Amino acid sequence: MNQKTIKDAQDRAVKMLEDAKIVLSEEEKKNIEVCDYNLGKLDTIGTEIVIYLNTDRCCAKELILFPGQTCPEHIHPQLGEYPGKEETFRCRWGEVYLYVPGEPVKEPKAIIHDEERRKHMTVWHEIVLKPGEQYTLKEQTLHWFQAGPQGAIVSEFSTQSFDKQDIFTDPEIIRLSNIN
Amino acid sequence: MNQKTIKDAQDRAVKMLEDAKIVLSEEEKKNIEVCDYNLGKLDTIGTEIVIYLNTDRCCAKELILFPGQTCPEHIHPQLGEYPGKEETFRCRWGEVYLYVPGEPVKEPKAIIHDEERRKHMTVWHEIVLKPGEQYTLKEQTLHWFQAGPQGAIVSEFSTQSFDKQDIFTDPEIIRLSNIN
Repeated sequence: MNQKTIKDAQDRAVKMLEDAKIVLSEEEKKNIEVCDYNLGKLDTIGTEIVIYLNTDRCCAKELILFPGQTCPEHIHPQLGEYPGKEETFRCRWGEVYLYVPGEPVKEPKAIIHDEERRKHMTVWHEIVLKPGEQYTLKEQTLHWFQAGPQGAIVSEFSTQSFDKQDIFTDPEIIRLSNIN
Repeated sequence: MNQKTIKDAQDRAVKMLEDAKIVLSEEEKKNIEVCDYNLGKLDTIGTEIVIYLNTDRCCAKELILFPGQTCPEHIHPQLGEYPGKEETFRCRWGEVYLYVPGEPVKEPKAIIHDEERRKHMTVWHEIVLKPGEQYTLKEQTLHWFQAGPQGAIVSEFSTQSFDKQDIFTDPEIIRLSNIN
């Protein structure tokens, strides 16, 4: 991604947060992480992330997803004595479709933007999260999610994040990141 | 507290959350914990609490404080192998004054409502948190906080909570609670 793509996505995320009345500091606005998973299709496969804190004991983030934008299938692995990340997604604004192992849904709400990429995202059990709804993923649960037609803002409450260690199903993905 | 006091406080907390555009489920609204620390002075010493999750690995809450309402001085102790709770307070709405051990502030912003109770709340280092500002308390940090003149909504991101085990400086306090 070039600097303009990143800045535009940050500005768009800030606008969504403002609409949802979620206040960031100026420093946090400048540091919004824009992740396209090295696929170059940010509008459809990407995530905008505000990291509030990430200590060795807990982590909190705000995830911003543009309309139809997908966070692709991945798992947070065990790392030595760390059993893997436990995370809770709480929808604050918009709508998000979350897929986890389980009985496959017949008519998934997620949009197929790209067959080549989507074959690496399994349509299993679908959880629809609207504002005020949340779901907890225990460690080592493979998952992916996509925002609905308005986009979504999702609070993530979790144990420590080791984002660079995340394992994605799609072999093309590199979780390039300027964060830990 | 009688049921009316609790219901009135819940309704008032719900109204503040709605003003701040923080969405709760109907179940969460009914379960807002109203804590007066057994002092019977809820308007000045009390906290309204929404528990989003509290697993053995992490915890997230929304704390609602009415104008000038105080959460009194306490510490989250070590419990066996658990080193004590680490918690981050992020102000979402209003303003909060947080006191932690350190150089005492000369003109504290907190209001003295009651000399008898306030002698158990030490005015040390003062941290003023406005929306978008946060502060992390490492384990075993004694602390108390009070909302500013509008009240406050504070997101708490932490390790597991064992609220009943909290140790309060004021000997009159009992952290009665219907939660773990």
